Parts: sequence; C-alpha cells; structure tokens
Amino acid sequence: MKKKTDFLDVAVQPDGRVPKLTGLNFRIPPAEGGSIEGRLFRRMLKEMDGPPLHFVLLWSGEEIPPLNIPPVARVTIRDRVTLLKLIINPDLHFGNAYGVGDIEVEGDLVQCLEAIYRGVARMSGNAYTKRLSRRLNKKRPNTAAQARDNIHHHYDIGNEFYKLWLDERMVYTCAYFSTPSVTLEEAQTAKMDHVCRKLWLKPGETVVEAGCGWGSLALHMARHYGVKVKAFNISHQQVLYARERAKAEGLDSKVEYVEDDYRNISGQFDALVSVGMLEHVGKEHYQELGDVIHRCLKPSGRGLIHSIGRSKACPMNAWVEKRIFPGAYPPTLREMMDVFEPWEFAVLDVENLRLHYAKTLEHWLARFERVSERVAEMYDRRFVREWRLYLAGSQAAFTVGDLQLFQVLFSGPANNAIPWTRAHLYQGQGE
Amino acid sequence: MKKKTDFLDVAVQPDGRVPKLTGLNFRIPPAEGGSIEGRLFRRMLKEMDGPPLHFVLLWSGEEIPPLNIPPVARVTIRDRVTLLKLIINPDLHFGNAYGVGDIEVEGDLVQCLEAIYRGVARMSGNAYTKRLSRRLNKKRPNTAAQARDNIHHHYDIGNEFYKLWLDERMVYTCAYFSTPSVTLEEAQTAKMDHVCRKLWLKPGETVVEAGCGWGSLALHMARHYGVKVKAFNISHQQVLYARERAKAEGLDSKVEYVEDDYRNISGQFDALVSVGMLEHVGKEHYQELGDVIHRCLKPSGRGLIHSIGRSKACPMNAWVEKRIFPGAYPPTLREMMDVFEPWEFAVLDVENLRLHYAKTLEHWLARFERVSERVAEMYDRRFVREWRLYLAGSQAAFTVGDLQLFQVLFSGPANNAIPWTRAHLYQGQGE
Repeated sequence: MKKKTDFLDVAVQPDGRVPKLTGLNFRIPPAEGGSIEGRLFRRMLKEMDGPPLHFVLLWSGEEIPPLNIPPVARVTIRDRVTLLKLIINPDLHFGNAYGVGDIEVEGDLVQCLEAIYRGVARMSGNAYTKRLSRRLNKKRPNTAAQARDNIHHHYDIGNEFYKLWLDERMVYTCAYFSTPSVTLEEAQTAKMDHVCRKLWLKPGETVVEAGCGWGSLALHMARHYGVKVKAFNISHQQVLYARERAKAEGLDSKVEYVEDDYRNISGQFDALVSVGMLEHVGKEHYQELGDVIHRCLKPSGRGLIHSIGRSKACPMNAWVEKRIFPGAYPPTLREMMDVFEPWEFAVLDVENLRLHYAKTLEHWLARFERVSERVAEMYDRRFVREWRLYLAGSQAAFTVGDLQLFQVLFSGPANNAIPWTRAHLYQGQGE
Repeated sequence: MKKKTDFLDVAVQPDGRVPKLTGLNFRIPPAEGGSIEGRLFRRMLKEMDGPPLHFVLLWSGEEIPPLNIPPVARVTIRDRVTLLKLIINPDLHFGNAYGVGDIEVEGDLVQCLEAIYRGVARMSGNAYTKRLSRRLNKKRPNTAAQARDNIHHHYDIGNEFYKLWLDERMVYTCAYFSTPSVTLEEAQTAKMDHVCRKLWLKPGETVVEAGCGWGSLALHMARHYGVKVKAFNISHQQVLYARERAKAEGLDSKVEYVEDDYRNISGQFDALVSVGMLEHVGKEHYQELGDVIHRCLKPSGRGLIHSIGRSKACPMNAWVEKRIFPGAYPPTLREMMDVFEPWEFAVLDVENLRLHYAKTLEHWLARFERVSERVAEMYDRRFVREWRLYLAGSQAAFTVGDLQLFQVLFSGPANNAIPWTRAHLYQGQGE
C-alpha cells in the first residue's frame, strides 16, 4: 500500500513540476509489440532474461508484462525520453528518473531492484558491460582535498537526518547479526565486539581508527576493551558530534577525535581499525594507505579493514556514485591486496558479511520509511525518493551478490603473537 | 645431541665420498677478515643483518661468529666451492650442499633455517631479490602430462616411506590444532572436521575432491557427514592405497577414487574440496581450475581450497622446487583470485593457518627423526638429509612468515543458502 501512495505522489508532483500527462490514454497494447522504443526496450528485457516486472509506458499506454512469471512489481515509465535514457544507460538513468518521479514503482522496491540487478548480470559481454569496463578505468583522484569534498557531500548532510533512522549510537556500517532476528541495536553492538575480538585487543593498548563515523566504535573499544583510541575523520559534522559524545560519556581522556585525513596519521599503535572507509579511499590510493599502516602499526600490531567489496571488479553504480557517494569504489579482494602486499602484511582472516549488510539495510530502509514525511519536510520529496532508492538498491545489491562486505584481519609478516584459532570470536555463541 | 651426531655423519660420509679435509687445521681467525671468499661471505651476512649463526669455513679454519648475539647453531662449510656457490645462489645451494654433507649444522636446524630466512628477507632490493623476481616469471607449464611426472616425483616415493612418519591415516597436509598441545592425530581429525563444517555438508549431498592424497578426507566426509564423494588424484600409488582403504572400511560404495587430472572432473556436485593441490596446479592454470569448478558446482554449491600461500609473490625455494616438489608454486591471495573472479565466485571466508602448519611440521620432523635410520636403510643418507632439510625448512618458513596456509571458502555469486555466521565451526569449542 505504501508503494501505491508513492505512485500517487507522482500525480501530486514530488518536486513541484507539472506531471507530463501526454498519452495518458490507456490503450490496448498493439499486437506487433508497439512503438520502436518499446521494441528496443523489449529486446533489452530479453537480454536480461525477462525480469519478473510489469512495465507500463505511460505516454502510449503500452503494457509489457513478464513472460510466464508473476511480476514482483509494476514499473511505470512516464515518457519516451526517460525510456530512451534508460535503454542507453540504465545504470545512471534509473536512479535519476526514479528520483524525480519519471519512473514509478508499485510493489516491492527492493525485489524490483533485485530483479533488475539479476537481469543486468545476465547481460554480460554486451555493450553495457563494455561501457562499464571503460568507466572502470576512469581516474578518480581522491586527493586529500577532493576526499574532503566527497565526504562532505554525504556525511555532512546533517547529523539530525541520520539520527532519524540510524540506531541510537549512529553506526552507519554493516551490523553483525548473530541470528537474523536480533534487533539492529544488538547487531551493531555485536559488530563492534566482533571487530574488537578479531583485533585481539588487550587493556592498555593503543588503537588508531581511520574513518570513525560518529565515533561509536572508538567509544565502545575504550569503554569495553580498556584501550586508548585516536580516531581520524574528515567529516566536520561527525567529528563535532563524536567529541561531544566522548565528553558526555566521560571518555574524552581515552578517545581523541582528530579531524584529519588518514594520510596524516602519525604515531605507533597496537592496532589499526578502519570500518567503512576503504570504499572512499579509491583504489589508486591503496598502496599509500598500506604505507600509512606500515608506518603506524607496531611489529606486534593487528589491523582490520571492513569494506564493501565485489567478487569481480566493477565500478560503483553510476547513479549512486553521482548522487550519493562521489568518489566511492568497492574493491575486489584482489584490489585490496594493494594495501597489504607491498609490506607483506599477512592476511589472517577474511569474513564476508554480505547477507548481514542486506539485513542492516532492511532495518535502515524500514526506519527511514517511518520518518520519510519528516525527511521530506527537512529536505524535499526528491531527497526522500533518492534515499529510498539508495537504501533499497543497496539492500538489493547485497542480496543478489552484486556487492560483498569483507572484514579483513591482518598483521605484520613476522607476528607470531596472534590467536591460535578464531574460537575466541564465538565464546558463548557456539551452541 | 642428535644434531651433533649428524655432524659426525659427515666424517663417516653420508654418501660414501671421502671427506675433503683440506685445511682442517683450526687456525686462529685472521685479524683482517681472512680470505676473499670469507670477506664476501661476511658482507653477505652483514646484508642479512647478521643472523645468530656461527660459521666455520672448514678448509681454512676461519670462524665467523655472530655479532653481539649468541648463536642458535654452528654451521660448517666444507670447502671453498660450496661457499662460493652459497654466495651466488643460497636459495638453491644451501639445500644441495646440506644434502651431500658439504654443509653441516650443529644445534637446532629449524632455528638455523629461521635465522637464514629472516636474514634473506632483510636483503630486499639487492641482487638476490632481483634474481628471484626473474625466476618468478619463468613458465612452468604443468600440462596434464607434466603434472603427472611432477606428482609422481614426490607422492610416488612409496607409501611405506610416508607410513613411517605421517599420522595413522596418512594425512599429508596442514593439521588444525585447537590448542598447540593436542596430538597430530587429533589435529588431523580436527582439520577434516573444520573443512567439512566450513563446507556446510548435509547428509545425502555429493562432493568432488580435487587431489585427494591417500584418501583420508573423502573417507572422513563419507563416514561422518553422510555424503557421497568422487575423489580425483594423479598419484597412482595414492589412489591404489585409497581404494584399498575404502574397501577395507566398507565405504567403497560411498567414495569413488578416480586416477585422473582435475581438468577431467565431470558431473555436478554440492561441494568441491581441494586440500593441498593448488600448490601443484601452477598459477597459469588457475583460471582453468576455476572453469572446472564452475562447470561442476551446483548453483547452491560451496567450495573450499586449502593451499600453501604467500603474503607477497615469490617463487618456491629453488632447492625445494628442484629436489622435492617440481612444478610447485605457493600463490598469494591476489593470484588465487584467478580461480574465483572470472566466474564471480564469492569468497566467503579465508583463514590463515600458518602457525598450524609450523606445528604440523614440527610433529612430522620429530616423527621422521625417530625413523631416520630406517629411512636411510630404505633409501640412503642423502635422502634422509634432504628430507630433514625439507621438513625443517618448511617449519622455519611457516614460523617466520615466509609461507602462509590459506583455507578459502567460496560459493556461487547468487547463493544465499550459506551459513549466517561461522559460529557453527566452533560448536563446543567456544569456552
């Protein structure tokens, strides 16, 4: 029903524009497959192995139901230009058009996007894939200055916005669900413990955090593991918020938040942790990150990098990269090795938490929907639609396996003071 | 004391040659650093940051003690030619010379080799490293025919030989020690269970094994996890032995041993397992292996590859490759991705069991020493010395971090029927 309301939103204009009602005369679909663009579109759908979606071309009234399977959603495309753009670059234009209401989805948005992603995956070897691989080689500098702009774009939207739908401690990375039914709060706590246990933290040790969000992990480590933390972040809003929390919780002598780039980390630490930053580093800077880690980690030190990744190299979805996360890139494990190999860091443990991120996003999306009216008041309806699409699209991408979530634990080449097994991660959880 | 006896073996001639006693007049070391080759050797030791070894040049009586640290071993080099060869290519000639008794080690052989490996690691950027990287690009075809010869060289030495010092089930791969103190037998059983749990085996499922050794894992899976196994191996001796065991244990209807190359695997299976084969595949064949896995794994299938690896690309020790394991190559995780990426297999879990292999080799070496007289009777003293060096050198390489042991669990890109966490691996072991 909710999605039905969304559809009606188009009529009442999400962004104040007058809806284009040209051709809104629901005709019987033509027997010979309809218009030229309709035929092109059907060919594209055929290449996608026929996703379970029912398309409606609003200007002509043409209806394109799925073949032999029930649809999971009804997708209305408002005008000819939108359809043509979609055929030319679905990766970018689906999001653009959805944002402004030129595409409407009735039914389950997540399932709709899963169907599209699965379909696109089947189109390998065609023009789309070739274009993607060209884009793959596009240089994204992510210099310190550009990185600051990119991070500002997303993370400085406003703490008030994120407070509306994140968990109470504002953890904006993949949670860890011991079972799918635990709450988001429990799962975020479990994730922090999982990370701390992997890092084998001992009281009195020092930890440096690269990219600390609103500071929750640093506080958790200091409070529950007795370590001192120096946490770096280039998001001004996040650092201000984190410092206030540390003070309020009496942990400001244990946790120092530094508003600076990871490249400027100095000092030597027992552990390094970076949860959800590597996506923003850019692969041409991985070796530089490795140099920083080598410089700041003691010979007995352990490090953990938690990052969205891929099973095969492919750029971030063009629309997400443009509208949501400029400069972002989810690496493959192969690409991540640029961080570790030059200094012969030994990879000790890689865990793929893909399904955990799908579940985290399911929670975020549900919470977001509950406050969407409030968000629309703070920003506008387009903002709501774009964030809905981003959250739903991310959930879909993790669900179908387009995105992975890797936690990589590593240590220096000659560190033999590492845990003998991983059993300590599961103490009390084994039965 | 054992090692002392080894040293005396030189005098009584390990290979029947008359020992060269030229210069066996223990002179006071010359004040100015001695002979030219002695000075060259001292420079090499300096580049190695001065390993804790006491060298004796037997022909001149020159003694080269370590600087400011007590030695872990006394290394006697018999003649000038041996020393010069050692300076030119220590990687190859240490083993050659040790095998025939031209180098003798008194003290702990494993610690001696650890010191050498650590020293060589510090020589990065010099001529040795450059030569290594040239060798790295050397092509090793490992065609089906060549692979058969290579495998025959090592695994067909004779089942009787391996029976003397492996555990009772003849498991010739890294064991899994829940604690360092468990027995080798317990650790090999634990390893098989660890692998089966990772693969999430369910009764009635089918498993294909690529490279099955003497067949113990296949039997273990069939007996304890209720699966049917088709196990491939190109070692004739191993396959004969494995078939006999399956029959004797009444499991021949559950486990089929096929004497054939992994490239000829056919059929579709719920799981694929390969423990200790990838080292023999050769990195130019990884994609081919990936194609085989893609062909034979069901969409819901899981796979596990267990292999010796590296943190940085580097060829197998030249002597080991020549005398022990022709065609072998331990890959980096980056290189292993050639198996997975082309078909977008999702890496679910990587565990590094480096210290477990060091411990396994410690057991093997101790067992081998207990039967070394028997082995000398079956083969000769050179064979004993080479195998001692190979086992000790491998233990040292895992201990110092020159070698890693990766267990990589993976699945098809869209498989969501994977375990939610890894807690099931540690049931009953968490406390």
